Amino acid sequence: MNRKVKQASTVIHPVQKNFKLIIQYDGTDFKGWQIQKNGERTVQAEMTMACEKIFKHPVSVIASGRTDSGVHAKAQVVSVKAKTRMKAAEVLRALNSHLPPDCAVLDAKEMRLDFHAQLSAKEKTYVYRILNTKIRQPLLLREALFFPYDLNISLMKKGAKYLVGKHDFKSLQAHDPLRADKETVRTIKRIVIKRKGDIIEIYVTADGFLYKMVRNIAGILLAVGCKQMLPQQVKDILLFKDRTKAPKTAPAHGLSLWEVKY
Amino acid sequence: MNRKVKQASTVIHPVQKNFKLIIQYDGTDFKGWQIQKNGERTVQAEMTMACEKIFKHPVSVIASGRTDSGVHAKAQVVSVKAKTRMKAAEVLRALNSHLPPDCAVLDAKEMRLDFHAQLSAKEKTYVYRILNTKIRQPLLLREALFFPYDLNISLMKKGAKYLVGKHDFKSLQAHDPLRADKETVRTIKRIVIKRKGDIIEIYVTADGFLYKMVRNIAGILLAVGCKQMLPQQVKDILLFKDRTKAPKTAPAHGLSLWEVKY
Repeated sequence: MNRKVKQASTVIHPVQKNFKLIIQYDGTDFKGWQIQKNGERTVQAEMTMACEKIFKHPVSVIASGRTDSGVHAKAQVVSVKAKTRMKAAEVLRALNSHLPPDCAVLDAKEMRLDFHAQLSAKEKTYVYRILNTKIRQPLLLREALFFPYDLNISLMKKGAKYLVGKHDFKSLQAHDPLRADKETVRTIKRIVIKRKGDIIEIYVTADGFLYKMVRNIAGILLAVGCKQMLPQQVKDILLFKDRTKAPKTAPAHGLSLWEVKY
Repeated sequence: MNRKVKQASTVIHPVQKNFKLIIQYDGTDFKGWQIQKNGERTVQAEMTMACEKIFKHPVSVIASGRTDSGVHAKAQVVSVKAKTRMKAAEVLRALNSHLPPDCAVLDAKEMRLDFHAQLSAKEKTYVYRILNTKIRQPLLLREALFFPYDLNISLMKKGAKYLVGKHDFKSLQAHDPLRADKETVRTIKRIVIKRKGDIIEIYVTADGFLYKMVRNIAGILLAVGCKQMLPQQVKDILLFKDRTKAPKTAPAHGLSLWEVKY
């Protein structure tokens, strides 16, 4: 009888919590972030399965933004609400023990219930990497586009200046069957281009991005860098507000989500 | 008639040439260097197919040394003899157009006929990489072993000192069904251990290596670094001349062939 009373007094009731998780993934073998109806392997699907295993109830895992098939994330931010007594550090360890090798939770924090990984995001930074050597290097090719032609970085920087600021980026929005952003005005806060050994990195920071916008920016800056286009023509591309006037979208595997700020 | 004569005078006779190729590969999806009878995907098999396509006769592709399944090469050296008029730069371009994305020729040179990638090698350097953070990082896990426990680098350096020099490394030789090196004395010229951010790198340079010797060295230095073993016990391991006295072999994916000198 005594024992029964003791047990009852130690029952721990789960409470509603909201976790902010920083996750990293190698996008190579994922069909992007978003859960697919056909059961394709996506990061959201893996995260949802892991969360439902540890929280033992259905959850909705929200990311700061979707990444496409093949795009990596050094630090994607997700939010997930759960009824649990687990602390953030326990959630981190438990999720990592259920996630596959190409996806991991780097950090976990408990937030107020109104925190939302997508809607609360203030700015995001993506990096596009280019392996700019005459010969491809297999050890660098998962995370960088191989581009063997000469690239003039100072021309690329000149072209990038026309993109920084508040503009209608309709010309840089790819058609997306799932989402058509009618509002196509965004503010690019900065574009930083630098060479690190054989790799050229393009960092783009904005308050938000349209579908495939960074890969279209990379495509434009590659065209400017190899002198297929003048830097000042970047301005014209924006004015056209027509996707078909911009150069080819750069491939997904060069792109990584670098940082999200709240 | 005239035309026929002209053609005959421009026939180019192939000559015997010997090429030294520097190749890079991501070992993840290869079953090691050596051609397998069962047709498994190996680097030597891919290189042989590419060479035979461009030279149009059977060739024997010789590496400075075999690498195991999963081991990478930043700069493996191979030699291949061919009857051809092609210059080294043409061979490089032609081979790269036939090789898969995870293997590439970085440099090609014509050598004297007596150059032999394995027998002429004077010293080789391998690097073993360890991701030493509490949480795994998917973007670094193809080329580094994830090891979440504290590692004391100065203890590792002390332990490494017992390995440098001319020793019988029988205790560090794994059993190899294809090759049993009876002569197990080798000279380790230097071991350099350094931390680069979250990664600890162990560079081992020797005149030659026994089967899985570098991975066994990595296993020993990990045991010393996390205080499972004292640095001075490394000396005892060598004296035992018995593989079973040494710690576990470190996994293949942390290992890369870094450089070969002639």
